[in-house]
Amino acid sequence: MKAPLNTLSYTLFDLFLVSQSVLSVQKTMNPKRPCKRFILYYHDILLNGTDTSNATSAAATTPTKLGDFVFGLLVVFDDPVTKNQNPQSPPAAQAQGFYFYDMKTTYNAWFAYTLIFNSTEHKGTINIMGADMMMEKTRDLSVVGGTGDFFMARGIATFETDAVEGFKYFRLKMDIKLYECY
Amino acid sequence: MKAPLNTLSYTLFDLFLVSQSVLSVQKTMNPKRPCKRFILYYHDILLNGTDTSNATSAAATTPTKLGDFVFGLLVVFDDPVTKNQNPQSPPAAQAQGFYFYDMKTTYNAWFAYTLIFNSTEHKGTINIMGADMMMEKTRDLSVVGGTGDFFMARGIATFETDAVEGFKYFRLKMDIKLYECY
Amino acid sequence: MKAPLNTLSYTLFDLFLVSQSVLSVQKTMNPKRPCKRFILYYHDILLNGTDTSNATSAAATTPTKLGDFVFGLLVVFDDPVTKNQNPQSPPAAQAQGFYFYDMKTTYNAWFAYTLIFNSTEHKGTINIMGADMMMEKTRDLSVVGGTGDFFMARGIATFETDAVEGFKYFRLKMDIKLYECY
Repeated sequence: MKAPLNTLSYTLFDLFLVSQSVLSVQKTMNPKRPCKRFILYYHDILLNGTDTSNATSAAATTPTKLGDFVFGLLVVFDDPVTKNQNPQSPPAAQAQGFYFYDMKTTYNAWFAYTLIFNSTEHKGTINIMGADMMMEKTRDLSVVGGTGDFFMARGIATFETDAVEGFKYFRLKMDIKLYECY
Repeated sequence: MKAPLNTLSYTLFDLFLVSQSVLSVQKTMNPKRPCKRFILYYHDILLNGTDTSNATSAAATTPTKLGDFVFGLLVVFDDPVTKNQNPQSPPAAQAQGFYFYDMKTTYNAWFAYTLIFNSTEHKGTINIMGADMMMEKTRDLSVVGGTGDFFMARGIATFETDAVEGFKYFRLKMDIKLYECY
Repeated sequence: MKAPLNTLSYTLFDLFLVSQSVLSVQKTMNPKRPCKRFILYYHDILLNGTDTSNATSAAATTPTKLGDFVFGLLVVFDDPVTKNQNPQSPPAAQAQGFYFYDMKTTYNAWFAYTLIFNSTEHKGTINIMGADMMMEKTRDLSVVGGTGDFFMARGIATFETDAVEGFKYFRLKMDIKLYECY
């Protein structure tokens, strides 16, 4: 009579392991438990007139007449991204892409860009897109893919405005959380 | 002699459960069985001149000379999305993003945008991009990510033109099907 | 005493199967083992003046004043994609989307587009975005989604410049590797 009992306990142990395996796949999707995380600061210096030495971005279109918040203004950027708030600190990555303003009642933007890492620490890219609802304290965009060290990554990029100096300079804190890492 | 037989049957039962678990992961990818689905109507009122009160979108570029179908015209939008065809019905979400026309032989577009939900029902965003082949009855775009209630979502957004009034107004039926839900 | 031993061996066999199942899921993510792969050539003929018969793309914006490498120039395209380098060979797909230049010190671009397949071989779309770091021999962009035959696909698109004739024509070799196939 003892054998079947042992069998059962082994089998239960076994089932436990099976569900563990399956749970661990889903566990990687717990919003609080990214498999990789970076906090980075994005610095955008918009070209103002012809001072091209410091500028890292430029308006490719002019604002439309829809409202008073530069609706339709599209900015292309090649912006440094650093590990701390100081724009002079060594870049951890380069952010290349664009944003445009898209509300008639307030400043609000939409971003699509690539974080390009080319250091001893990381080589590869992370692709991000989503709405930057500037009136919210934090807003989540999607990490839709990655290459190199970030092969096939997916996740969330949480933006927080860290500094604004009119249209001349702004800094975003980007909290990049990956939930699919390979 | 009975014990090993019982063991075998437990083990077979066990294997059955294992394959069940694995199959169920793949089952979520059956095109006919999304894990979440919404049918929404997108209303686009293009700014025509200076009547900004009703307009929800505006052209950020002018058409190029390539063909007669406004090739290169890029429109930025902040459009209401409703549960039924009536543009006056309460918005279920806001669609922020852009589209541009991209064929020289017919009207055809390409979209990238975010559906922003901020209601008691849903809070979060869904990010979408893809070709809007307007000559096709229905066309599929990709849901490439999501945040909030749609954390890490992926899926398909099927567009169907529901109404067109020249360049003044058009309505798209968007059938959003998510196949990855967390 | 024998029964528990047999049980253990069955259970170990069982565990082996479990880990096999889990490994096989991860195996599909080996960068060297895509589940689907295409090598395609992308041909871009930029509209130059008013010769619209051959052109397949057109500049929707003008370059900004940031540097000497047409920073901010945004090009909308509807380009043929072929299986070999000959632009006259029958198109395997159509690439619809846009790119823009985004560096002040060199030519460098960012792409987002859809590959549209509509042949007896394949019907469906593949959506791609990422940085095209033109100074690199090869560069990886993200396949962020797919529809039809490429339902829910994800992967990597490796670009390699194959020919350049000033701003008139360029050809990219696109090595599309899918790692999620359904």
